[in-house]
Amino acid sequence: MANIFEVPEPGNDLLEKADQVCLASKKIGQTENHDRIEALNFMADYLEKNTKEILEANNEDYIRAEKKDISKALLSRLKLSKEKLDSGIEGVRKVGDLTDPVDQIQIKREISKGLILERKTVPIGVLGVIFESRPDAVMQISSLAIRSGNAVMLKGGSEASLTNTAIVKALKQGLNASGLDENAICLLTSRKDSMSMLNLEKYINLIIPRGSNELVKFIQENTRIPVLGHADGICHLFIDSEANLEMALSVSLDSKIQYPAACNAIETLLVHKDIAPVFIENAIPLFDSNDVKLIGDKRSVELGLKYEASLEDWQTEYLDLILSIKIVDDLDKAITHIQKFSSKHTDGIITENLSTANKFMNLVDSAGVFHNCSTRFADGFRYGFGAEVGISTQTLPPRGPVGLEGLVTYKYFLKGDGNIVDDFLSGKAIYTHKDL
Amino acid sequence: MANIFEVPEPGNDLLEKADQVCLASKKIGQTENHDRIEALNFMADYLEKNTKEILEANNEDYIRAEKKDISKALLSRLKLSKEKLDSGIEGVRKVGDLTDPVDQIQIKREISKGLILERKTVPIGVLGVIFESRPDAVMQISSLAIRSGNAVMLKGGSEASLTNTAIVKALKQGLNASGLDENAICLLTSRKDSMSMLNLEKYINLIIPRGSNELVKFIQENTRIPVLGHADGICHLFIDSEANLEMALSVSLDSKIQYPAACNAIETLLVHKDIAPVFIENAIPLFDSNDVKLIGDKRSVELGLKYEASLEDWQTEYLDLILSIKIVDDLDKAITHIQKFSSKHTDGIITENLSTANKFMNLVDSAGVFHNCSTRFADGFRYGFGAEVGISTQTLPPRGPVGLEGLVTYKYFLKGDGNIVDDFLSGKAIYTHKDL
Repeated sequence: MANIFEVPEPGNDLLEKADQVCLASKKIGQTENHDRIEALNFMADYLEKNTKEILEANNEDYIRAEKKDISKALLSRLKLSKEKLDSGIEGVRKVGDLTDPVDQIQIKREISKGLILERKTVPIGVLGVIFESRPDAVMQISSLAIRSGNAVMLKGGSEASLTNTAIVKALKQGLNASGLDENAICLLTSRKDSMSMLNLEKYINLIIPRGSNELVKFIQENTRIPVLGHADGICHLFIDSEANLEMALSVSLDSKIQYPAACNAIETLLVHKDIAPVFIENAIPLFDSNDVKLIGDKRSVELGLKYEASLEDWQTEYLDLILSIKIVDDLDKAITHIQKFSSKHTDGIITENLSTANKFMNLVDSAGVFHNCSTRFADGFRYGFGAEVGISTQTLPPRGPVGLEGLVTYKYFLKGDGNIVDDFLSGKAIYTHKDL
Repeated sequence: MANIFEVPEPGNDLLEKADQVCLASKKIGQTENHDRIEALNFMADYLEKNTKEILEANNEDYIRAEKKDISKALLSRLKLSKEKLDSGIEGVRKVGDLTDPVDQIQIKREISKGLILERKTVPIGVLGVIFESRPDAVMQISSLAIRSGNAVMLKGGSEASLTNTAIVKALKQGLNASGLDENAICLLTSRKDSMSMLNLEKYINLIIPRGSNELVKFIQENTRIPVLGHADGICHLFIDSEANLEMALSVSLDSKIQYPAACNAIETLLVHKDIAPVFIENAIPLFDSNDVKLIGDKRSVELGLKYEASLEDWQTEYLDLILSIKIVDDLDKAITHIQKFSSKHTDGIITENLSTANKFMNLVDSAGVFHNCSTRFADGFRYGFGAEVGISTQTLPPRGPVGLEGLVTYKYFLKGDGNIVDDFLSGKAIYTHKDL
């Protein structure tokens, strides 16, 4: 792609900060569960103590932003009310209630007499988080990082710079009070630093972008550090000929309007030709009365839709009250369309026929494949993960909504009493491979 | 890096092949465990039936290679004896005995009444395998791919081209005989195609390189497809002051000479200053009598080593009977050296002090951290995985030796009876989040 931004080489200042964060990550990586929970509580306490300062900083950010040519949506995300801050602080405490993701034993095996293998979860190290506008993200992501024993380098949007600085100051006070290294949370404020982060592959183990599709895509294409996230969320719902009509209408509507700006909202309905006439007849007034603009292929326009779709519609994430509709001849045609246009986030089918449902769910290669339910369930909290670090549309794990498990990795611990491989060749020792 | 090779855009021929492989991957992704086991047996049968043809092809490859300026090591890897072929065929059958990695339920949870979430393992899709010389790799990696329900695009070294073609022909006959799509295994033979593979991110889900460090490094730096593998294997062993001397000597020797060309052999011994005099005194004759050249820092040269190390030694994977030795003041200095020079593959410590061992194992950020045993145990078979797809030195999973689990991913299946998110906001439905 033609780069809009440059990714500059990290300067000495940034490298020094990165060194400090790395060192802090080693320290926090050695802490016990209760140390990290205590740190979260102190972080919440200090956010409370600094409420006035944080809200004033946010007010100043807001006034400055208003004077610039900034969109209303962005302004509204920037605004941190007392309620939003309180709920963010409550969120920090709640992260302490989540199950400790660190030190979980995944494998424990006797390799041979006296030689024990363990695979245990460990923190990833240093997270790099790049986000736009929303200052509440600082609290959320910092608490998830600390919970999982990681250090974090944060870069927020420049329009929220004062707010972010005030929040991070409070978080660092909390870390300090709990005896952890305050360098475990590091805020970058210059735009140059933010982009240079992408070149810190020796320091940062995972980048988590929070923001527009463009931001995510740019990051994915300009760093060798693994990126947890997704750009587009083009989700489909296929209404099979054997669908329950009432269910098809209700789930379609929920999947579109319940929160149209979400990545798990549908952009395209695929409708089996046999159910299309009655489905479209009912869908038009239903979606009309909910202010959803319907755009369809030729056949659905023939059935009464007002707007005809172009190729671009099938590849657009509207994030708005707009829905494209395509009539397909059969299941295979629906799957082919999805394989071509899906962003591999979440795709669903409505049908009473179990074997059709199974075929759809097996052949559609998306992180989530849903049967007879709204695509809006594709979410870490709704899945019961307690927290959502992000949603990944890559094929390899972590895939789909990612909870705290996305912030840990594992490592192999092998403990012996002088075991050598040569003894196994000479027959002095044998492999037992017994799970313990 | 300055690219030695070019990564060309894929031509139409290659795209067509990629389409066929993708299609075949969808089909094999739907097969049952017993279908895939049967296919492996047929593949082995047809390799047997084609033994004469394969060995003749290999002979021809060998004669051609001899005439070129090819290293002895490469020639020896190229040679496929009857025994090597038979053992490869036996290996194909044995892959059938491994536990099916597909369709394993990782999460089964009631989200709400009538809404059931399952996370199940599924094949990754299409694997891209690039390897040098060793024609036995074709049998091994193809059988692992088929076992796990994946399709595979293979590119071997041009010097083994006739052998690889003969082997893949037999494997395809086996697939055909078992009723699977023979396009699930695709061999690329031109160098141009091999490099173009790196640009097939829409078709290939995982690249597995088998070959020199340079090959792996080049691939890692020239593709956006995830790469399973590692470039360097610079492993360390730290001999603590509280080590059992006899164990320290025996494990050091095994870690170096048991198979010096392996990635899990050590390149550097770090020796605590307090044990250094007696350790080095004993190590010199021991390693000498095993033809190992010892290169040391100033302090070890003072203790009798003949060759002095330069900075380059600490960052070199000798893959040979050469070992560098450095004397360190304490555990922290050893860890600092490892953090600087380790390739995060496997690093070990010899000590009788458990708390020293634990500190070492927690602070060293490598895929394998070993206590009182040889680094040569870092291997999928020795870990009891039944097969090894590769060893990964990245921080995120899969990490360390990777078995069949590296060839599957997972996907979320959500099944409901018309559930919509709006009902949870209005209070008509509640989340139960009950593991089943």
